[in-house]
Amino acid sequence: MQDVFKHIDDNLDARLEQLFEWLSIPSVSADPAFAGDTRKAAEWLRDRLLEAGMTSAEILETDGHPAVYAEWMGAPGKPTVLCYGHYDVQPAVKEDGWDTEPFEPLNKDGRLWGRGAADDKGQVHCHFAAVESMMKVRGELSCNVKFIVEGEEEAGSEHTEALIRDNAEKLACDVVLVSDSPMFAEGYPSICVGLRGLAYGEVFVRGPAGDLHSGSFGGGVANPANVLSRMLAGLHDENGKVTIPGFYDDVVELTADERAAFASLPYDEADFLSNTGSPCVAGEEGYTTLERIWARPSIDINGIYSGYIGEGAKTIVPKVASSKLSARLVANQQPEKILELMEKYFLDNAPETVKVEFERHHTGRAYLGDTSARPFVAARKALKCAFDADAVEIREGGSIPIVATFEEALESPCVLMGFGLPDQNIHGPNENLRVVNYHKGTRSIAAFLDELAG
Amino acid sequence: MQDVFKHIDDNLDARLEQLFEWLSIPSVSADPAFAGDTRKAAEWLRDRLLEAGMTSAEILETDGHPAVYAEWMGAPGKPTVLCYGHYDVQPAVKEDGWDTEPFEPLNKDGRLWGRGAADDKGQVHCHFAAVESMMKVRGELSCNVKFIVEGEEEAGSEHTEALIRDNAEKLACDVVLVSDSPMFAEGYPSICVGLRGLAYGEVFVRGPAGDLHSGSFGGGVANPANVLSRMLAGLHDENGKVTIPGFYDDVVELTADERAAFASLPYDEADFLSNTGSPCVAGEEGYTTLERIWARPSIDINGIYSGYIGEGAKTIVPKVASSKLSARLVANQQPEKILELMEKYFLDNAPETVKVEFERHHTGRAYLGDTSARPFVAARKALKCAFDADAVEIREGGSIPIVATFEEALESPCVLMGFGLPDQNIHGPNENLRVVNYHKGTRSIAAFLDELAG
Repeated sequence: MQDVFKHIDDNLDARLEQLFEWLSIPSVSADPAFAGDTRKAAEWLRDRLLEAGMTSAEILETDGHPAVYAEWMGAPGKPTVLCYGHYDVQPAVKEDGWDTEPFEPLNKDGRLWGRGAADDKGQVHCHFAAVESMMKVRGELSCNVKFIVEGEEEAGSEHTEALIRDNAEKLACDVVLVSDSPMFAEGYPSICVGLRGLAYGEVFVRGPAGDLHSGSFGGGVANPANVLSRMLAGLHDENGKVTIPGFYDDVVELTADERAAFASLPYDEADFLSNTGSPCVAGEEGYTTLERIWARPSIDINGIYSGYIGEGAKTIVPKVASSKLSARLVANQQPEKILELMEKYFLDNAPETVKVEFERHHTGRAYLGDTSARPFVAARKALKCAFDADAVEIREGGSIPIVATFEEALESPCVLMGFGLPDQNIHGPNENLRVVNYHKGTRSIAAFLDELAG
Repeated sequence: MQDVFKHIDDNLDARLEQLFEWLSIPSVSADPAFAGDTRKAAEWLRDRLLEAGMTSAEILETDGHPAVYAEWMGAPGKPTVLCYGHYDVQPAVKEDGWDTEPFEPLNKDGRLWGRGAADDKGQVHCHFAAVESMMKVRGELSCNVKFIVEGEEEAGSEHTEALIRDNAEKLACDVVLVSDSPMFAEGYPSICVGLRGLAYGEVFVRGPAGDLHSGSFGGGVANPANVLSRMLAGLHDENGKVTIPGFYDDVVELTADERAAFASLPYDEADFLSNTGSPCVAGEEGYTTLERIWARPSIDINGIYSGYIGEGAKTIVPKVASSKLSARLVANQQPEKILELMEKYFLDNAPETVKVEFERHHTGRAYLGDTSARPFVAARKALKCAFDADAVEIREGGSIPIVATFEEALESPCVLMGFGLPDQNIHGPNENLRVVNYHKGTRSIAAFLDELAG
C-alpha cells in the first residue's frame, strides 16, 4: 500500500488545486439558473476520470440533471466496487453568513472551505484521487471499479432511482462505496452500518361540518382538536414506548456488544443538547440517546393543525384537526406494515363523536449492514491503515433512500464511510472539510480497494 | 294594556313600512365605505325617537361609529328602563346567497326579509314602536325610558364599553332591556337568563432551538407537539370532565327545577346535530346537551399549531407547538382565577424536556339573572300577555360582553328577551324576522313597561 500512499501524500497540494477547480463550478441542482454549471461539473468529472485511466467515462442523461458513469474492469476475478456520490450542491450565497465566497474555495486553518467541500464533491474527489494514484503508480487497480455520480441528490434524487434500476446491469457490483456521511468525531474513522427507515402518514379528525361558535356549542359536541390530542397523546406510554400494538414486533434488538460499542464512543450529551437546543434528552426509557436515535424506532409529530392559528383569539370549535406523523424504523421493520398499524391505531381509537381518516404518505426501509461480511472487514482494515486508528461502527437516525435502492436494484451491500466531521456545516454557511481527513480519506479508499482484493 | 295593544295592532303595516326605511340604509359598521350610511342610520333613529315624544334624543360620538341616546323621564318614582340595541349590521351582498337584495327589505311569507331584520334593527324597532304607541295613546309612558343604541356591535363594540362607563350617570337605570337574542322556538317566548363567560389563553411548548431532522434526532429529544398533545389530552378525563384542579370549585350547580325546565323545552337532538354537522353529541357525562352548553363550563381547543402543515411530508421535530384554548364559564366562576388555574395546569404538567409558557388573552364573566327579581317577573308576565303563551327561561352558551359591562358599570340587571327564531339567519344570507314575532315583540315591550311600573 505504501507505494500508493506515497503518491497520494506527494500530490496532495496539486490534488487540492484540482478539487478547487471543481468546487468553483456552482452546480446547484435545485436552481434551474445553474443548470449549465451543473452539467459543466458533470463533464469536468467525466474528463478527469478519463484522464485518470478509467476505460470509459460518460454522461448518463436523465429527465433531470445528468449523472456521470465510468468504469475500469481490468481485474477479472476480483470484486467490483461501485463508487457512488453526487456532484451537485446545495444553494449558497455569501449573504447567508459565509465568511468567504462559497464558490471561491479556500484552504485555511487546516480546512477546505466552500460549498461542496464535504457534501459531496470533496469526498467524491477522495474516490477519484485514490483511483488515479493507484493507476499512476501501478498502471492498474486492485479491484474493478465503477463510478456513478449523480447530479440531483440535493434536489431529491427524483430521477436517480429510475437511473439505477434502468442501468442495473451496467452498475452491477459486489459492493457500493458511499462517502457522504460524517465521521463520529475527529480521530474516529467511521463506518456507518445502519440507517433508520421511515413510515410517513397523516391523520384527519373531522367533527362538525364547519367551525362552530365555541360558546354556543362548546361542551355540546366533540372538538376534533381535543380528540386528536388524545389519540396523539396515546401513541406513547409514560416510559416513552410506542403503544401501537405490534409496533416493536419485528425490531432487531441491540446485542450487548453493539450497546458496548455505542457506549464506548466519545458521545457528549452537552454537545448533543447544544446542537439541538433542547433542555434535555428524552425518549424511550431503558436506552441511551445514541441507542434511541440509531437503533430504536420512534414516532414523531411532524406537524399538527387545527382551527385558528393567527394572531389573537377566535372562539371556535374547529371542524377538523390533522397531524403529520413519521415513524422512524429500524432493521427488519416493514414500513408498509407499520403504516397499516398506525392507521389501525387511529381508526380503532376513533370515538364515534368524530370521523377519522388516515392517509399514507411515503415509506423507506431501514438499513443494517452485515458487518461480518467481507466489504466491512475490508473497510475496517482500510480505515485503520489510513487513519492509524481503529474504525468505529456508527449508525444514522435518518434515511439515505439511495442505499435501499442499491440494495434492492443491485442486490449489493453498501459501505458508508465518510470523512467529514459533525461541524462540517453541510447545507449551511461555511461548509468545510478538514484537509487531514480529505487526505486520510483518499488513502482509505485506496486501501479499501487493496483490502477488498485480498 | 288593551289601549296600547290596539294601537300597535292597528298600525302594524305603517310601522313595517317605517322599519323598511331604516333597513334600507346599509349601516355596515365593519366596512369604512359605509361610514356615511352608518351615521345616517343613527340620525334616522334619533329623529324618529324625537318624533315619538322622547324628551331628548342625541348622537353620542365615539372614536368609532356614534351611538344614539334618548330619554323620557316623566314618570318620577317609577323604575327606569334602559333599552339597549344596535343599529349597525353585518355586511351583506346578494351574491352571498340571498334570494332578495339584502338592503331592499321585503314582507313575504309572513316574514320580514333583509339585513338587520332580526339583528338588530327589527328588534330595536319593537322597543321604539312600543314606546311610540304608548305615548300616542296615553301621552305618557308607564316607566321612565332611556335608549342607548350603538353602531359598532357587529364590529366588536370597540368603543362601547368606554361609552357606557363614561356615560354611566346618564345611562343610570333599574333594568337594561336587550332584544338581541333568539326565542327558543316558535311559540316559546323566551327570556335568556344566563350567558357563559370566557377565559381565553394560549400555551406554547418549546423544545429544540430550531426544527430538527426527525431522522437524526427523533427519539432523542422531546417533540413539543407530542408533549403538547399529552397535556391537552390530560385536560379532560374519560367522562369528559375537566381535570384542572379547582376548575369546578365555584360552579353554581343546576337545581332540580332548572333541570326540569330545560328538559321541558322542545329540544330536538337531530336538529341540533344537523345544525352542527357533528356525528353525535359529546361532552361531560351526567348532563344533557342543553345543560352542558348552557350551564356547565367547558374547555375547547380553538386552534393548534406545530411544525409543517403544508402539502406533502416534511420530516422534522418541530421547535415549538402551541394551542389556543377557551374555557366557557358559568355563574360564579371567576375568569381570572380560571386562567390562573389553566396556566398552573400547563406549568405543573410541563416535563423538564421542554419549556412551557402560557399567555393570557381576554376574559368575560358569565351572567346569571336573578329570575325572582322584579324585572324578570315583569318580563314573564309581559310575554305571557303578548304571546298568550308561558315564557320559558333559556340560556346561551356564548357570551354577550355588553351584559357584563352593564352589570358592572351601571349595576343594573339585564333582561334579555328577543323575538327572532333560531332560523333567522343573522350574519348569513336571507336574514329574517317573523312578522308575528315582530308584532308580539312590540306588544311585549309595551306590556313590560306596564308590568314593571306595577
